[in-house]
Amino acid sequence: MQCVKCGAKAVYYSVYSGHSFCAKCFMKSVEQRVRATINRYKLFDPEDRIVIAISGGKDSQVLATIIAKVEKDFPGATLSALIVDEGVPGYRDFGLRRSKELCDELGIELTTTSFKELFGYSLPEIVSIAEQKGVSLGACTFCGILRRRAINVKAKELGATKVATGHNLDDEAQTALMNLLRGDVVRLLRLGPKPVEEFPGFVPRVKPLRYIPEKETTLYAYFKGYPLYEVECPYVRESMRDEIRSILNEIEGRHPGTKYAIVRAADRLSAMGASLKVRVGSCKYCGEPTSRDVCRACELLEVLGVTS
Amino acid sequence: MQCVKCGAKAVYYSVYSGHSFCAKCFMKSVEQRVRATINRYKLFDPEDRIVIAISGGKDSQVLATIIAKVEKDFPGATLSALIVDEGVPGYRDFGLRRSKELCDELGIELTTTSFKELFGYSLPEIVSIAEQKGVSLGACTFCGILRRRAINVKAKELGATKVATGHNLDDEAQTALMNLLRGDVVRLLRLGPKPVEEFPGFVPRVKPLRYIPEKETTLYAYFKGYPLYEVECPYVRESMRDEIRSILNEIEGRHPGTKYAIVRAADRLSAMGASLKVRVGSCKYCGEPTSRDVCRACELLEVLGVTS
Repeated sequence: MQCVKCGAKAVYYSVYSGHSFCAKCFMKSVEQRVRATINRYKLFDPEDRIVIAISGGKDSQVLATIIAKVEKDFPGATLSALIVDEGVPGYRDFGLRRSKELCDELGIELTTTSFKELFGYSLPEIVSIAEQKGVSLGACTFCGILRRRAINVKAKELGATKVATGHNLDDEAQTALMNLLRGDVVRLLRLGPKPVEEFPGFVPRVKPLRYIPEKETTLYAYFKGYPLYEVECPYVRESMRDEIRSILNEIEGRHPGTKYAIVRAADRLSAMGASLKVRVGSCKYCGEPTSRDVCRACELLEVLGVTS
Repeated sequence: MQCVKCGAKAVYYSVYSGHSFCAKCFMKSVEQRVRATINRYKLFDPEDRIVIAISGGKDSQVLATIIAKVEKDFPGATLSALIVDEGVPGYRDFGLRRSKELCDELGIELTTTSFKELFGYSLPEIVSIAEQKGVSLGACTFCGILRRRAINVKAKELGATKVATGHNLDDEAQTALMNLLRGDVVRLLRLGPKPVEEFPGFVPRVKPLRYIPEKETTLYAYFKGYPLYEVECPYVRESMRDEIRSILNEIEGRHPGTKYAIVRAADRLSAMGASLKVRVGSCKYCGEPTSRDVCRACELLEVLGVTS
């Protein structure tokens, strides 16, 4: 098979478009689609101070690489990266090294922070305190809430006006599906490519890879020669996401286009959700934005008797 | 284990409520929940002419039985039943006999109609015409669209002001999930217990069993001594629904409450969808209500060169 663009030997066939690509043209096609997402949804402003939430995994490597290229079109914008170490032994070490290496290559400044630094305890320590106190919440719940807080707090310190995350099509379809299965309409309606509303104190998050299937972010990283080695989080088997991932891959196999259809549906729902005003104030403990009196992060830390 | 209500020997344990019931109290509990749905969502008006869409399967038997009881509270209302024979050999025979028998027992008048009567052809004939003409639509697509048309046309002839259908919690959760997987936001937003808007020419449909799990409609029918024998439609394996049913049962097994959470989410979405006005006019061929120029039923029949 030949590349539809340049006639060279094709290495990838896209079921969606029905086209075959050589490695070079495939990478260009991914970059073009990311640019199209950025333009269509106006993810960035010319003067943005963009902070990439990096993990060292394939998606965030691909994100950093493409955003570094795109940023050249926005001479008024600045770019840096932020990595959060949850302190799970052996899990983030590779990502920390790889993020440093890639940011050096791309000429992006990297800031490192950790649960320990921000909250006084690592994730395993928090999980073990929770067990002692009989708090029956999974590690993924703590991690999700605290990572969100960590990224927002550090991004503000860095003067960020946007945080870019590496969520790909698969992640977003999984999240939309999980929100429906949990009956969480509010989260389902918030799941657009860009926040429908801006809240004081919360740095808006954008997801430039939202329409790129995981298969393609992996392939892009592979063609770039990036290490694909990923340490699986020891807690991953606890999460409903892991279950939804397999189910969705099965359905996609039989009905190609399903992941895309779900994400498009979430887009339309979130556009509708824009009209539902959410009252956002400040957490009475930490001052971070929240729709509650006390934010989820402070609530968790309080239950555990841990103060941030 | 003892029945939580009367202390008799329990035969059913409800995971949702954490209560055990004897057969009699279980049936009462189902009836109470159906009444609660009817009251909460105002499914019926005092002067309604209610037509039950019956199939002879367990759900529609349970529906007819409970509605016949509830109707006694609405002396101004009338009740009748309607069955549609798709003409699939061997499939509907039992349902036709059983519906007649049950309606006689309940003192409800039953009207029978068929695809043949209304459209000139049975479903298998339509499927074979479609194959000859190279129309690549599954039998379930034809059946769904034509059954909907058949029920509306005959219900109007019967002077109906409401059509009640036997959709249970499982059906509704499957439909919501399918709509998301297909990216069909419009249908997802329309999926409430009751139409959010009334359209001229379309008899509003209500779903009194919407919050009763399939397991419980089956058990109710079993305790009533109703025949549970159901002939599986020979086309069922073609449908995506069959796939979604298994997936959802798997998830429900691991996360009890998921079906309910999905249906509640669909409720909230459809309440929001109420604000999205849909323009509904009349099909230029048959005059039935549609948001298009030509309704889906006429479009299908036209493609096949079959006129109704």
